[in-house]
Order: sequence, then C-alpha cells, then structure tokens
Amino acid sequence: MKAVILLSGGLDSATAAAVARSRGLVLYALTFDYNQRHKKELSCAQKVGHSLGVQDHQFVELHLPKLNSALVDTSIPIPKGCSRQIIPETYVPARNVIFLSIAAAHAESIGAIDIFVGVNAIDYSGYPDCRPEFIEAFQTALNVGTKTAIMGKPFVIHTPLIKLTKGEIIKWGISLGIDYSLTWSCYQGGEKACGECDSCLLRQKGFQEAGINDPLEYCHLS
Amino acid sequence: MKAVILLSGGLDSATAAAVARSRGLVLYALTFDYNQRHKKELSCAQKVGHSLGVQDHQFVELHLPKLNSALVDTSIPIPKGCSRQIIPETYVPARNVIFLSIAAAHAESIGAIDIFVGVNAIDYSGYPDCRPEFIEAFQTALNVGTKTAIMGKPFVIHTPLIKLTKGEIIKWGISLGIDYSLTWSCYQGGEKACGECDSCLLRQKGFQEAGINDPLEYCHLS
Repeated sequence: MKAVILLSGGLDSATAAAVARSRGLVLYALTFDYNQRHKKELSCAQKVGHSLGVQDHQFVELHLPKLNSALVDTSIPIPKGCSRQIIPETYVPARNVIFLSIAAAHAESIGAIDIFVGVNAIDYSGYPDCRPEFIEAFQTALNVGTKTAIMGKPFVIHTPLIKLTKGEIIKWGISLGIDYSLTWSCYQGGEKACGECDSCLLRQKGFQEAGINDPLEYCHLS
Repeated sequence: MKAVILLSGGLDSATAAAVARSRGLVLYALTFDYNQRHKKELSCAQKVGHSLGVQDHQFVELHLPKLNSALVDTSIPIPKGCSRQIIPETYVPARNVIFLSIAAAHAESIGAIDIFVGVNAIDYSGYPDCRPEFIEAFQTALNVGTKTAIMGKPFVIHTPLIKLTKGEIIKWGISLGIDYSLTWSCYQGGEKACGECDSCLLRQKGFQEAGINDPLEYCHLS
C-alpha cells in the first residue's frame, strides 16, 4: 500500500517515514521548498529519502505571497532559545495546513489514503498546526472535502510521533536504522548547526535524553 | 478591514468579491495558476480584480505533483454535459483545500481574518470541497491550527453564494455592478466558450433564469 510522507529533512519526519516503512507501506515522499532560510534541509530530505528507499520523491516549489515568519523573511532574526510562553517568530503561517493539503491532492492522485507527518506536540516550538487538535480537525475536513473520502475511502493522517519526547523519537529512529547524520534541524542553515535556535536546542535535548551522540557538528554547544 | 478573496476569473468568485466590497472590506485578491487547461481565466481574474478596485492581487503559480483531473491532464477529455450522478472527471483533488490553506497563510501574514470564496452547492458540479460541510470543517481546522486564531482572532470563511441558484448569483452580481463580460467559465479555454461543458451549461442556465443575456460568445448554444 502506498503512503504519502511529508519529508522535511529534519529528524522527526525521517523517523515518521521509517515508521511508515516498518509498517510495510510503499513511500511516496513529498518535500517543500517554501523559500525557507534553512534550504540545506532540502538536500538532507533527498538523502533521507534515498536512504529509506522511497518509491518516489516529489520536490514542490511553493511561490507563496510573502509570509510573516522569521523562517522565510531574513529581516526577522531567528530567536535564540525559546521561552515556551508564546508562539515564536519562526512560526510559518498555516504551513502544515498547506503541506497536508498538497499531500492529500497527491495522495488522491496516486491512489493513497495514508499520509504520514512527523509532527510532535511534546518537545516542540508551540506551533498550533503540530497539535493533535489540528490534525484531527484537518482530517475531518479532508474527509468531507475530497472525492476519495466521499467514495468511501477516508484519509488517515498518521502522526506516530505526536506524543513522544524527542529522546523517545530518536531511540525509535535508531532502532529502525535511521542515520541521523543525514538529517538537519538548525533554522539558520549555516555550514554547522548554530546550537542556539529552538530547533537545535530541542535536537540536542533529544540526543542527550536518548544517551546517544548527535552526529551533527555545532558552532555552539549549549 | 482587509479580506482575502479567492478570484478565479469565473462568475461566482467575481460575485463573491463584489459582495465583500459591498460590505466595505478592502480586497486582497488571490488567483492560482495550477496549470489549468482554461488558463484564459487568469487574465479574466486580472480584469475582474482591476474592475473591482482590489488593493492587491497576488497570482500564485502552483507546481504541484501531477494531479488526476481532466482540468489539468489534457489526456483526460472534458465531459460534455453532466449526469449529476457522480463527481465528474473535472474534479481537481483537494483544490479548495489547497487554495483556502494558502489564503489563510496570506491572510495571517497581512493581518486579515476574513476570507471570501465563491463556492456554490446548488448549481454546481458536485465537487465535495464546494459544500458547506467542507467549509465549516476547514474553518474549524484553521481555527485550531493557526497562530492568529489561537491568539483570539479566529478566521471566518465567507461563502455568500453557497445556497443560491446560478440565476440568483447573477442577479445579485448585476445589482452590485459586475461586468460579467470580464469573466470566464468554460473548462476548454478556447477562443469562444464551448457551450457544452458542465461549467458552460451551468452559466447558461443561470443567465436564462436571471432573464439576462450572457455577454460571452459560444461555439455551441445549448
């Protein structure tokens, strides 16, 4: 059975893809270039997809109207660390809404109903479109808004990591054979990971919890 | 107040935009090039936007994975007429899901919460993403999945035409001053409208019901 996998190049989506593969699904990967500052993740997504033996990998260039986000507007600095009190400047408006919409269109066109996404609502940046409430509501919308669903084959959005800690995610991924040196998390997208942005901090926390060495090099180790 | 308006170049979206204008909203139009067969509608959208005095008009080119639809895959013929028994080949997978997702991202970036879309579930082709069930479910998903909504400003997706007949839509549009000669409905996208596709038939039925002459020229008058 085919499954559409959102593959960003980060460690969560790589792990979610490996979970899908371990369930015997044939992987149709989908990666988005939305003019993100850390375009480096795109080549990582390619390598991760290759290492997982994906059947097909589509790279979609999105030329969206200007988005108000530090991840696409380089005039807004990437915050160092994170207060966990507010949704940070790195929030990209409706990002997973757009990604999952296109995933559904792609799934419907190739005859798949399973969509995997590596969202996590435990060790995360507070983005509302990573939470179970959103995923459930979006799946409901898809299942009243698409031909496939109306014809009796509702979509299932799989979020195998949504309630795990970053450490648990990494341990699971290692057990599934993922090479995390292929993945990229840093928002800055420099040669080495910055070690200071929220995404680096969450990644480092995860490897520490898992008791595994992070194979990436950092400019600053926190 | 700003409102994002999905403007396709067709008569429904032109009317929905005119309704938004009549309510005193400042129009931010959004038009999608998704490699549709009837690209002619894009230049019509431009003219309609201009005639309505939009504040801003973004044209978004979507380079999506290959979609299974007669509207984008020219190897699938456009059906003549419509049985109203099944969802026709002109259905585009998750089209309004994608369009509304990008509209929400745009709205969030410009500080708008009102989105207008000219969907209609009476004189329509049976596309599931034109029905009230979908719009309501999608609005719910947006309002748990976006920062704007979480911060206390939920999105409202306005569908002023959803329960009107095509004749009622046209009469309303005429009363709001729309020049329907600027709009385009035919799926074939030829020099003249084909007069045989479902979209032409619905348009002709509407003008007939409204007792108004359709300003477009047709190859075949049904």
